[in-house]
Amino acid sequence: MKTADIVILGGSAAGITAALTARRHYPQKSVLVIRQEKEVLIPCGIPYIFGTVGSPSKNLIPDALVEKASVEILLAEVRSLDPDRKTVETSQGPVGYDKLVMATGSLPSVPPIPGTDLPGVYPIAKDVPSLLALQEELGRAKDVVIIGGGFIGIEFADEIRKAGVDNVTIVEIAPHCLSLSYDTVFCEEAEEALKGRGIQIRTSTKVQAIQGQGHVERALLVDGSTLKADVVILGAGAIPNVKIAQAAGLVLGATGAIKVDRTMRTSVPDVFACGDCAKKFSFFGGRPSTLKLASIATLEARIAGANLYGITRENCGTIGVWSTAIGDLALGTAGLTESAAVGEGYEVVTATVEGPNRHPGGMPGGAPMKVKLVFERNSGVLLGGQVRGNSAAGELLNVMAACVQQRMTAEDIAMFQMGTHPALTASPVAYPLTNAAEIAIGAMRNRC
Amino acid sequence: MKTADIVILGGSAAGITAALTARRHYPQKSVLVIRQEKEVLIPCGIPYIFGTVGSPSKNLIPDALVEKASVEILLAEVRSLDPDRKTVETSQGPVGYDKLVMATGSLPSVPPIPGTDLPGVYPIAKDVPSLLALQEELGRAKDVVIIGGGFIGIEFADEIRKAGVDNVTIVEIAPHCLSLSYDTVFCEEAEEALKGRGIQIRTSTKVQAIQGQGHVERALLVDGSTLKADVVILGAGAIPNVKIAQAAGLVLGATGAIKVDRTMRTSVPDVFACGDCAKKFSFFGGRPSTLKLASIATLEARIAGANLYGITRENCGTIGVWSTAIGDLALGTAGLTESAAVGEGYEVVTATVEGPNRHPGGMPGGAPMKVKLVFERNSGVLLGGQVRGNSAAGELLNVMAACVQQRMTAEDIAMFQMGTHPALTASPVAYPLTNAAEIAIGAMRNRC
Repeated sequence: MKTADIVILGGSAAGITAALTARRHYPQKSVLVIRQEKEVLIPCGIPYIFGTVGSPSKNLIPDALVEKASVEILLAEVRSLDPDRKTVETSQGPVGYDKLVMATGSLPSVPPIPGTDLPGVYPIAKDVPSLLALQEELGRAKDVVIIGGGFIGIEFADEIRKAGVDNVTIVEIAPHCLSLSYDTVFCEEAEEALKGRGIQIRTSTKVQAIQGQGHVERALLVDGSTLKADVVILGAGAIPNVKIAQAAGLVLGATGAIKVDRTMRTSVPDVFACGDCAKKFSFFGGRPSTLKLASIATLEARIAGANLYGITRENCGTIGVWSTAIGDLALGTAGLTESAAVGEGYEVVTATVEGPNRHPGGMPGGAPMKVKLVFERNSGVLLGGQVRGNSAAGELLNVMAACVQQRMTAEDIAMFQMGTHPALTASPVAYPLTNAAEIAIGAMRNRC
Repeated sequence: MKTADIVILGGSAAGITAALTARRHYPQKSVLVIRQEKEVLIPCGIPYIFGTVGSPSKNLIPDALVEKASVEILLAEVRSLDPDRKTVETSQGPVGYDKLVMATGSLPSVPPIPGTDLPGVYPIAKDVPSLLALQEELGRAKDVVIIGGGFIGIEFADEIRKAGVDNVTIVEIAPHCLSLSYDTVFCEEAEEALKGRGIQIRTSTKVQAIQGQGHVERALLVDGSTLKADVVILGAGAIPNVKIAQAAGLVLGATGAIKVDRTMRTSVPDVFACGDCAKKFSFFGGRPSTLKLASIATLEARIAGANLYGITRENCGTIGVWSTAIGDLALGTAGLTESAAVGEGYEVVTATVEGPNRHPGGMPGGAPMKVKLVFERNSGVLLGGQVRGNSAAGELLNVMAACVQQRMTAEDIAMFQMGTHPALTASPVAYPLTNAAEIAIGAMRNRC
């Protein structure tokens, strides 16, 4: 029987990172990744296949990344796990392990709408053949309907429009696209940008049926109107892929994901889990979280991979740090939005500043940048930050992420020693984080 | 006699920020800024006047920034300070104060070289008339010599070349340009970029004399060679402008700057100082620092402005966070370089990672990014980070600045919850900070 000290099920962001982390922390151990996909897609890059990078083959994680770290890859379908015998059954025969990491990811959620089984309806699976089939159909499509105005929905919409499809419509049940991810003012800016790029948006409504003769032809909305559709994309989230884990008796959590403790250990000895398949809890209050992001997956994988033969790391909970881009517009959130913070019961003070991202604003790359910080009113601790700007907003977001993770207060942020440069950032007089912190300090003080 | 509760001497980055901070923290107090310049230049933007923004008038801090905060501006030359009578004498008559902030900045350092008084030799003064004169001369110049390969030197060189001057030569006494600011490998990349843009670089040498008949004509180097020069720029640093303070009896520190405590109070009651004129000490060990950056000035101004009527803030010392750009290449340092850390007596572990700043790397804006982190070997505390990348490196730098300021360890950074996006950042599998931290952790563990 084939064996390895450390066996990892799944070869996407979590699996690869768990393998690389295990290799770094346990250089003497053999590490084997078992995955079924011949090629591994960069998960967050999937929408960008259609209008920007051009094909799935240009959006792959090269096997060399793990192979040069002496991690073995076995291409096989995993059929079952026997934790007592410490063995997994695969299409290529059994594999024995000393430590196992479940990194089996998630599967696209299919909403309970009649007609999702029609040809031309695509959940977004992370595999090359299904994306090639979608790309081929999009090449002939004139009308595309996207169900769900979250990240997947808006990024697919923008890319499909960019690829040349005339009529792309997002249907979103909430009053705004991205409303779980940003406060309303940022959602509105995203919607304006999308509309400016020729995308139709239908909010506060939903698809009640997908219809067609042998192939999708239209989506029927709850108000009785119909949208022509050669292709329908389901951007309705994802559910943890826990089939193997569940069959093996691993305990699942309230969110349907594999239950893990803060060290990423499952309910079964020597079995860890990380990434979309693993249960998450919030950095803020500790309740279960259903967020699924590649960046969260890699954090959990760095914990799991380091802890395999001795606990050195603990998960402090999911902060939730994400960004998206619509053309030159970038939008990011680190931690809680104001609406999420209020929903969680926090009393908040917010401050929003807007100004140029260069100094003077006429420097090349100059664009308006908006930053909103959300503080807990009594302690002054930063609960979250949102940014709208150009591409540098993706790293400004990470400045805010560091501040949130370190539980920095408004006063700490007012004392932040940032670096500034005319060609790269806002001016030090108007740096958005320090200025927003000062405004929030004023608001906290003047409380009646 | 004219009076104000809070009087601020100087209207550049420190003065403006002190005024705005005082306004925010003491909304009932009158705030007056006294400055002599009719128009205030954005200090860091000065080099970019010549090749990029086009004129000094496009590089100004608008008075509206402070005026809309109900800060009064008095255009006057300050002649003396009488701390006993709490009055300053100005060209517009005496002004009484309750609290005074010295934000008098710095003056360009003129190296002790014969000929610096010749017409055509320009120290970089922060005033519009002298920059207009320089710009006019550059319009006729064919050969320009720049003394000093620090930030001022290389940024002026690049902009003057961009403005169309054929022959621009930097003369630097050290073996590399920017060697006080970056470790050698980054300096070399900067030099390559400068050379690729047509700039001549002479290192490990210096100018022994500037010569010409009634106007500069050439620079004579110590090896006896000469460089033709229609214009010579002195990029040899700056010295604190302490004339008024010294005459008023304020104690100066070892660096020649106004001595202040951690609250930015000078040796005289009710007089504070901040910015280039104020003494600084290092975040690392607390020794005096001669760093002068607008971002440091604004930090100190946020401390001084808040402390005027009651101490609420203390300076934790100057971390030193800077960046520069040469075309599309951005270079930044937060905290200590490896050579500075070793020079300060730290035992260090470093880790350098390089990879694309997008995922996949073929996404628009994709460029290689290099990050080097410097950790104290025993505690694992981050002492500094350097980055070379595209424009987003300016904010990635600030992620590192936050990590340094919070004294995060390699382990803390390995657990950093960054946000990633294909169009904006590196992939979460290869995010440079977490990966460099993991490499450093391995190096710390494997110590013999």
